Amino acid sequence: MNTLQKYIETHRNRFVEELFDLLRTPSISADSDYKPQIAKTAKQVASALEKIGCDHVQEIQTQGNPVVYADKIIDTKLPTVLVYGHYDVQPADPLDLWESEPFEPTIKNTLIHPEGAIFARGACDDKGQFFMHVKAIEYLITTNQLPCNIKFMVEGEEEIGSPSLEATIKEYKELFKNDVILISDTGMISNTQPSITTGLRGLSYVEVEVTGPNRDLHSGFYGGAVANPINILSKMIAELHDENNKITIPGFYDDVLELSETDREEMAKAPFDQQTYNKSIAISKEAGEKGYSTLERSSVRPTLDVNGIWGGYIGKGAKTVLPSKAYAKISMRLVANQDPDKITELFTRHFLSLAPESVTVKITPHHGGKAYLTPLDSIGYQAAHKAYSQTFKTPPIPQPSGGSIPIVSLFNDVFGSHTILMGFGLNTDAIHSPNEHFGLFNFFKGIETIPYFYQHFTELYKNS
Amino acid sequence: MNTLQKYIETHRNRFVEELFDLLRTPSISADSDYKPQIAKTAKQVASALEKIGCDHVQEIQTQGNPVVYADKIIDTKLPTVLVYGHYDVQPADPLDLWESEPFEPTIKNTLIHPEGAIFARGACDDKGQFFMHVKAIEYLITTNQLPCNIKFMVEGEEEIGSPSLEATIKEYKELFKNDVILISDTGMISNTQPSITTGLRGLSYVEVEVTGPNRDLHSGFYGGAVANPINILSKMIAELHDENNKITIPGFYDDVLELSETDREEMAKAPFDQQTYNKSIAISKEAGEKGYSTLERSSVRPTLDVNGIWGGYIGKGAKTVLPSKAYAKISMRLVANQDPDKITELFTRHFLSLAPESVTVKITPHHGGKAYLTPLDSIGYQAAHKAYSQTFKTPPIPQPSGGSIPIVSLFNDVFGSHTILMGFGLNTDAIHSPNEHFGLFNFFKGIETIPYFYQHFTELYKNS
Repeated sequence: MNTLQKYIETHRNRFVEELFDLLRTPSISADSDYKPQIAKTAKQVASALEKIGCDHVQEIQTQGNPVVYADKIIDTKLPTVLVYGHYDVQPADPLDLWESEPFEPTIKNTLIHPEGAIFARGACDDKGQFFMHVKAIEYLITTNQLPCNIKFMVEGEEEIGSPSLEATIKEYKELFKNDVILISDTGMISNTQPSITTGLRGLSYVEVEVTGPNRDLHSGFYGGAVANPINILSKMIAELHDENNKITIPGFYDDVLELSETDREEMAKAPFDQQTYNKSIAISKEAGEKGYSTLERSSVRPTLDVNGIWGGYIGKGAKTVLPSKAYAKISMRLVANQDPDKITELFTRHFLSLAPESVTVKITPHHGGKAYLTPLDSIGYQAAHKAYSQTFKTPPIPQPSGGSIPIVSLFNDVFGSHTILMGFGLNTDAIHSPNEHFGLFNFFKGIETIPYFYQHFTELYKNS
Repeated sequence: MNTLQKYIETHRNRFVEELFDLLRTPSISADSDYKPQIAKTAKQVASALEKIGCDHVQEIQTQGNPVVYADKIIDTKLPTVLVYGHYDVQPADPLDLWESEPFEPTIKNTLIHPEGAIFARGACDDKGQFFMHVKAIEYLITTNQLPCNIKFMVEGEEEIGSPSLEATIKEYKELFKNDVILISDTGMISNTQPSITTGLRGLSYVEVEVTGPNRDLHSGFYGGAVANPINILSKMIAELHDENNKITIPGFYDDVLELSETDREEMAKAPFDQQTYNKSIAISKEAGEKGYSTLERSSVRPTLDVNGIWGGYIGKGAKTVLPSKAYAKISMRLVANQDPDKITELFTRHFLSLAPESVTVKITPHHGGKAYLTPLDSIGYQAAHKAYSQTFKTPPIPQPSGGSIPIVSLFNDVFGSHTILMGFGLNTDAIHSPNEHFGLFNFFKGIETIPYFYQHFTELYKNS
């Protein structure tokens, strides 16, 4: 056991206890009722960074939730690593599907995590994952081994699309200046097969409202003679995909980079079994865009999903109402080269064109973000590759992901630096779902792997 | 002013106060949380009937909510009128659209009701309307003018499809035995043009549940590769109508009685202006089955409406979830000759056939009911016709309605007697909607008209 492993072993329980404290605050950014909890969590993060010996710890006020900043500058001639994380979490509903309280973290064993996993909203996404960095830096500072400069940026609006971050990083561009950005907010293939996320999908997210009559009507007196906004909305949604599950929005695929045959062959090598996949989520058949594999459909192809729908009477029993309004939240995952603003505009134009004269339609865009690809020949990627290889005893596989972290392409634009996605979660960790969890193995393996990144990155930087 | 009008004038305020008391109890049958309020309302109804001098007042216990019975048998050789009403009400949501408290009745003037209208859930449907009968009978008993026997049946499950009523009336068939049934639970054309509802549509009501994966998934990791139950449900709903707004369920129209050209011409004579109709509910264009007029579509043609839909994230802000389940409540209004059980079966078979292999679908039937037509040559209809003509100074127009009172065809089957639908509400009274109300003119005109029905019916009965 080396010094790093010994340090982790000694402080194991304290690390978990400290993370539990953070997980107990329901910092839900999507619901403004949780503003006080957001504020409290920002303070908890700042205090955790202060405790490990960081300097210039501060809460940067934004239009929305504060961004926590901290740094440790040991030598301005050395490179600077910026660690990005987010302290906000997804809403916990549906609450009745949680087997333990979402904001009362608890450790339970699972088949995939026989050594235990922390169950709580945010356990993996992203409190557990950014906290690995806090503890890895604690080790490097405490043992006087930090090989380069480090900066932290922990924001509180990632789950709602980081609406204030662009203005903030532009205003504080000098403060956040860096040579590489590290983010642990993605996953890896398995605990025995590490992988590094090398691609992220972009996102366009809209809310639509279809209005028929100006009030809820009795479906007996008006049914059949007045357009029902739920029926109409259903029809409009149905028309967004064709019989091959291609998205029908004119121009939607225009900017999509098609994979080369070589890329597709490379991707097909990743370990994947359709039967296991289907079984893991209890479906009898997969579905998706004709002509593409499940891995392609869920990472390098653009998609359109209704994330929520509601309208009319949704209580117990029967009510014969012809409702005034029906609503849906619709998101599109985008791939490299697709511009989210353009896609939102194409969606809006097309969706409005689907509306019959008998209803009115209102479309409100939520947040969006561009897709991103990490260059495999960058020193950041190479340093991460070496770090994983050392602690996992096997090299990590580069993998495009279907998820979105919209700020990654923004970072590239503003700082000109690459982002390395050192995720330690697993696909089965149920992030954004009830019973979100994060393996203790993954948490500690992350803390162990991160210091090696700093060592290799500084060396490669000096030699470059 | 005759004695009847004088009696109403003298007791005006008391009548309204008594109705207010009844309206203050939220007797919502669709939600079992309101069981105590249902029980309280049944007692209020029983006590009101006792007070006006009825005999044998009792609450008949059923599998569900009690049925209140009362009678006044003056001579077994005379005919018996059974008055049916219901003391349960629709849920009041969406609450935020009410301009006054739904269960705190208040009188406000409106353009259509310049002399004032009572605003409350149940004001028209049906507490206000059955209470007209209670007060009309109060007059007849008090002044010793009751010309025949009278029985009351006031139930508490109409708004959920009267699930217990069939068993109850079969068990108590002798008790409820009658020569004609009077119901005030429908409307009329306007306060200057009375009409009598001569047809009711039937109803088939189902709840559908579409399940994709066994838990909510992250739409980034799974979106595009796993069937989204909301998208699928939307598509299935869209397929229930064709481009002419005909219902696509095979066999759906098989038993529908098509209107003769004469019937259609007769219907077209009813005063109706499409522009006024559209304006009254703020739509820019009507919609419906091709080849039929608005009046036909909303009364004598069968329909299919989604009454409620829900699934995924429906809170504030954005959540990128691919939900496990999506739900809809779907009802079909049926016309004379269509059998609701058969239609429910046809719907179920067809809807299941629309489901792709990637999801599972569960269909739960709610209540149903057959359509009904009142014969215009029955003495009941003729008596009502005379009564309206006397108090409105103009003859009422016979009108088929698009609404459903499923128990009406059941009454016909069990008692062999006709139902006369003496409604005094207006289409604009917003029943089943926020701000339900009932005009004071209509309430008092109902109390004034009903006694004439008894007089004419008894005379016609004696001469028949």
